[in-house]
Amino acid sequence: MFERSKKYHISGVSHNIRFFEPYPFVTKSAKGKYLIDVDGNKYTDYWMGHWSLILGHVAPKITGEVKKQINNCWMHGTVNANTIEFSEVIQKAVPVAEKIRYVSTGTEATMYATRIARAKTGRKIIAKIDGGWHGYTTDLLKSVNYPFDQTESAGLTDEAHIVSIPYNNLEKSLSILESVKDDLAGVIIEPVLGGAGCIPATKEYLTGVQEFIHKNNSIFILDEIVTGFRFRFGCLYNTMNLDPDIVTLGKITGGGFPIGVICGKDEIMKITDINSNKRLDRSYIGGGTFSANPMTMTSGKAMLEFLKKNSGPLYKKIGKFGEQTRKELTKIFQDKVTVTGMGSLFMPHFLQNGVTDITNAEDAARCNTSILKKYHFEMIARDGIFFLPGKLGAISNAHTEADIKKLLEASERFAESM
Amino acid sequence: MFERSKKYHISGVSHNIRFFEPYPFVTKSAKGKYLIDVDGNKYTDYWMGHWSLILGHVAPKITGEVKKQINNCWMHGTVNANTIEFSEVIQKAVPVAEKIRYVSTGTEATMYATRIARAKTGRKIIAKIDGGWHGYTTDLLKSVNYPFDQTESAGLTDEAHIVSIPYNNLEKSLSILESVKDDLAGVIIEPVLGGAGCIPATKEYLTGVQEFIHKNNSIFILDEIVTGFRFRFGCLYNTMNLDPDIVTLGKITGGGFPIGVICGKDEIMKITDINSNKRLDRSYIGGGTFSANPMTMTSGKAMLEFLKKNSGPLYKKIGKFGEQTRKELTKIFQDKVTVTGMGSLFMPHFLQNGVTDITNAEDAARCNTSILKKYHFEMIARDGIFFLPGKLGAISNAHTEADIKKLLEASERFAESM
Repeated sequence: MFERSKKYHISGVSHNIRFFEPYPFVTKSAKGKYLIDVDGNKYTDYWMGHWSLILGHVAPKITGEVKKQINNCWMHGTVNANTIEFSEVIQKAVPVAEKIRYVSTGTEATMYATRIARAKTGRKIIAKIDGGWHGYTTDLLKSVNYPFDQTESAGLTDEAHIVSIPYNNLEKSLSILESVKDDLAGVIIEPVLGGAGCIPATKEYLTGVQEFIHKNNSIFILDEIVTGFRFRFGCLYNTMNLDPDIVTLGKITGGGFPIGVICGKDEIMKITDINSNKRLDRSYIGGGTFSANPMTMTSGKAMLEFLKKNSGPLYKKIGKFGEQTRKELTKIFQDKVTVTGMGSLFMPHFLQNGVTDITNAEDAARCNTSILKKYHFEMIARDGIFFLPGKLGAISNAHTEADIKKLLEASERFAESM
Repeated sequence: MFERSKKYHISGVSHNIRFFEPYPFVTKSAKGKYLIDVDGNKYTDYWMGHWSLILGHVAPKITGEVKKQINNCWMHGTVNANTIEFSEVIQKAVPVAEKIRYVSTGTEATMYATRIARAKTGRKIIAKIDGGWHGYTTDLLKSVNYPFDQTESAGLTDEAHIVSIPYNNLEKSLSILESVKDDLAGVIIEPVLGGAGCIPATKEYLTGVQEFIHKNNSIFILDEIVTGFRFRFGCLYNTMNLDPDIVTLGKITGGGFPIGVICGKDEIMKITDINSNKRLDRSYIGGGTFSANPMTMTSGKAMLEFLKKNSGPLYKKIGKFGEQTRKELTKIFQDKVTVTGMGSLFMPHFLQNGVTDITNAEDAARCNTSILKKYHFEMIARDGIFFLPGKLGAISNAHTEADIKKLLEASERFAESM
């Protein structure tokens, strides 16, 4: 099947990271905690749709609502009632969302957030984190993969307006920001580095960077596409007394249907209003044909309403599983591994090159990523457990104590064979 | 309801063009040819989801398939079987699609097409058409709205790498292309200008521009997001003996679920293969969390299979309705209006400023767009007929002879009141 896929698709996939050696299996369906491939093999899934499916696959509460919505229509490109209701839920949970614009992907959300920051400040430079991943948008495609000083792609035109700072290193970050402060439009940060290694930022780091940003009249964009609704009913920033100007959401927020959300303070977002700004002053943002389509609005609303109602026990349960997993993996691999993560997210790093602590993307990249991929791949092939090889794991509400046990047993077998 | 929407959303909408004066109605559901608002008013819809829904809303053949897919799961972020089957259909219908990459929106598709052109040629400049609309991507956000020499947005950084040429004016276009030929990476063109006024390109124009592009070793990107599967089972370029390097698809192709498609020749697309290119040589393109999600693949495949099976009578019927509408509107408005379009697409332009013929976006923009919006709005308010005010109309398979008659009668009433 994958040979057939390669006939039609570059690298046989529709997203670069979905390829892994020797070849990825082809999924037929998914249900609860399981991915099921075309040969009928079942995998307990910790990838969970790029970490979007916090309730597992085909969650009943969402399924019922999206099926009903299919009958009411799946897109029409006009203003619709369920968008308003969905936004009411988001605004209560995410106070910075004084105004909201829906788009269809995280890549679009960060592209527009960047444009708003540049328009609002009249400056050009956006600072991001070494290893920070905000989608493939041209405006942020720099310093994603280690080594961070190499270009990410041929065909980019605008890398000169992107600078990059090291995560959790406040002194060095401030020194870089200081050097570009006059043209610094904004800074975009994930409060937990996702693709670059499941690494939480320290509160001290985020607070320190924020202080610089505010003093410099730049825009603070917090990218909570991975972290929004992952650890609590709302964003991570609320728990850290942070004051971002714009927060981007995606993944969990859409209930598994395509979504990107730009949430921002009124004062910032009003620059995007084409009815009250002149063409030269406005920030012209999408939108798009599929923005706020009724399927996404319905599934997102069903997801958030379920999470709101069940937030206490749900986040406690998956957070406990995450903590247990991090603790037990640390025991199993002993000093060979440092396990990073937070709440229901976790990722083991196989130490080498003198790295002992994982505080930023460089630490993670200098670890032995080949062994990590081998560990994940062996669990796919032997244990029926799926992680996207090399990527962090996400526990969902569909996982049970027995799944965690099975994962730890498989990890023990791998540790013994190392 | 719209007042409530404004509390949460910039301009009350999730896409700039969805706002119209005095305020847009709020849609509750849609079925067949109808949009139904929250007050129960029914509108015969010629907007049809940004012209995506060529079978009308909730088309039975697609509904059945997407409902089944809901049970199988709506996203999982791994390679899936229905992607392969969908691509087989596309590749047969669109021969340039030797390799395909799915993304979630047209904006993403054109962004990546642009990046590929720059990577492949090692050059920077992309030429587009005055008024050409390819989504909100930073790489192409220039010369969209008249006057075309004004910037579209604050906060853009890369307009210097975009040049713009006048549609259907071969001599002037070639002269501009000639002036930037050494750094000309590619040219992107819609074979029928969509957002800018429903204006078909002449075969002579497209052939002439293509000849220049090929001779200059630049990349020819044909944007068929609006036109793909709109006039026939396949693209428009096949009927014109054109030889584009990349074709972008969207809208109809996804059956109403979020989609963008980059179709290209093997020789071009291989630069995006991260497994066979070094980091400095590759063109790093998405993807995204929701790319090739099973809902879009299922609805797209159901749409294309239905179109393939019914292409003869279906395109003949909606094309005939389109022709009839253009002809009758021309009679009704006499010399006050020129009606542009092709097949099932049509748009009346209220002439002024000495404009008599509509061959490019400037002609369209210099017409009386206020009267056009008034004409559309009066049909919304009085006749239960919906066009997005100021935009082209798209006839679907759900429309009937009686609908066309009703539209023409409403137009007659408006013409009499002018």
